[in-house]
Amino acid sequence: MSLLVVGSIALDTIHTPQDSRERILGGSCVYFALASSFFTRPRIVGVVGEDFPNEYYNLLKERDIDLEGLKISPGKTFFWEGRYDENPDYRETIKVELNVFSTFQPVLPEKYQYSDFVFLANIDPDLQANVLNQIKKPKLIALDSMDWWIEHKLESLLNVIKRIDVFFVNEDEAKMLTQRANIIKAGKELIKLGPSLIILKKGTHGALVFSKERIFAFPAHPVEDVIDPTGAGDTFAGGFMGFLDKKGKANLSTICKALIYGSVLASFVVEDFGVNKLLTLTYKDIKKRYREFKKLVAY
Amino acid sequence: MSLLVVGSIALDTIHTPQDSRERILGGSCVYFALASSFFTRPRIVGVVGEDFPNEYYNLLKERDIDLEGLKISPGKTFFWEGRYDENPDYRETIKVELNVFSTFQPVLPEKYQYSDFVFLANIDPDLQANVLNQIKKPKLIALDSMDWWIEHKLESLLNVIKRIDVFFVNEDEAKMLTQRANIIKAGKELIKLGPSLIILKKGTHGALVFSKERIFAFPAHPVEDVIDPTGAGDTFAGGFMGFLDKKGKANLSTICKALIYGSVLASFVVEDFGVNKLLTLTYKDIKKRYREFKKLVAY
Repeated sequence: MSLLVVGSIALDTIHTPQDSRERILGGSCVYFALASSFFTRPRIVGVVGEDFPNEYYNLLKERDIDLEGLKISPGKTFFWEGRYDENPDYRETIKVELNVFSTFQPVLPEKYQYSDFVFLANIDPDLQANVLNQIKKPKLIALDSMDWWIEHKLESLLNVIKRIDVFFVNEDEAKMLTQRANIIKAGKELIKLGPSLIILKKGTHGALVFSKERIFAFPAHPVEDVIDPTGAGDTFAGGFMGFLDKKGKANLSTICKALIYGSVLASFVVEDFGVNKLLTLTYKDIKKRYREFKKLVAY
Repeated sequence: MSLLVVGSIALDTIHTPQDSRERILGGSCVYFALASSFFTRPRIVGVVGEDFPNEYYNLLKERDIDLEGLKISPGKTFFWEGRYDENPDYRETIKVELNVFSTFQPVLPEKYQYSDFVFLANIDPDLQANVLNQIKKPKLIALDSMDWWIEHKLESLLNVIKRIDVFFVNEDEAKMLTQRANIIKAGKELIKLGPSLIILKKGTHGALVFSKERIFAFPAHPVEDVIDPTGAGDTFAGGFMGFLDKKGKANLSTICKALIYGSVLASFVVEDFGVNKLLTLTYKDIKKRYREFKKLVAY
């Protein structure tokens, strides 16, 4: 099987109540690819500037991520700076510099056009649609977005949501998109937009998963020391899609296991700054926490 | 078996974003007793004033609640007025009139002193201790409290918490009591205070349950139309304790089922104002939603 992710590759400056890190490796594409690399060999499509450190490039290479679709463009890498509250579910964006990302036009290498599982990370919905137009016979397409696109490119976003299978969305986005204050109603409305699965993320409270037939409630693995919540959502998606790609199918029971793996990966990534934890983690660690998670929800 | 609850019986004026109700039947004792009455015949200890409507007294009688411990005192019934936000997890207290509740000294009828399961609803921790002193050979004692007692009667509260088995606590209270911002750390600290089970309530996000050996994560049953969240916590406790009393034991598997029944009862009570839903509900409705809940968490 094959797994493709299209999204941002970034340098992040992150402030938490305890500490800060400057210009560390980040971006939705990176978190997703590293998380999924425990299960499969992800292909990434993204762009970095000439300032992108070799060290970071090598990190991705060492995890055996397929970098054929990684473009190095003249200029600087996408930069994001943010600050977290004591409650890790809240953050404030201090600065965004799009840099080379502002003119990013994802072009898929021919091999990539035949990808079974595709994750369209949070980028302009027109670009997400553009990627979809290049994909031939996918098994499953998943998409993430953000409040900015709901406010500024709603029509484009709704058009691309129609064409996907799995929609990752957080509580606020779900309420904005559906104009429903109740999260259950919001989830049910989102299913009507086209996707067969809505993964409604609630941060430290886990997720609600809506299909046409039913709802799953899904707690987060309890984490005692949240160091840096950045990338948790993309890491969740990476664990989820990586496992689906490994199994080569997306039936209900595989999806349920994939959700647990996504949750487990997300619970690891927040335990250290940036992607650090994903670099030292072993598959054995993941399996161990997977078993712990099953106990957590076994009544 | 036998189940005793000591707590408030109130007249509530409730404002939600959509509607209001004036001086309706409420109080922790009432919600708990009505919820548990689907499983057992609860005994209540509480006080009302001479203004307490006969109609409300009869409602409790009709649900076959043992009212021997209900005292009618000269003066007015405890009154609470509050307002809910669009997010049902937030509420503001507008007015509290303690009235006859201000001099409430719970005295247990002799029969009540031999109760197997005891719920000390949110009242002054000194009164909770006073009730405990009157109880002989209980099987399981559970307790609920609130931020006010943590702020103003911490020592008394900690002393009574040492003597109980199950502590119902919400997120904010858990953080206040333990001085921990992280909810998992807070839960683990609370276990050290004495109880063998901490039920950490997260409103619409469900609950985390801590024992010495493990943690359970517990979603709330999804409710599409939250009309009035008042009493959800006490209803949860009532379903939980009612089921335990019915089964006459509190081993792990019974506790897990009891938690589901508590969650199911709570999901019903919020679907209408005050205790209305608990008055029209049937045991068949409860069993049906119990099965739905098991599906919700079955991966």
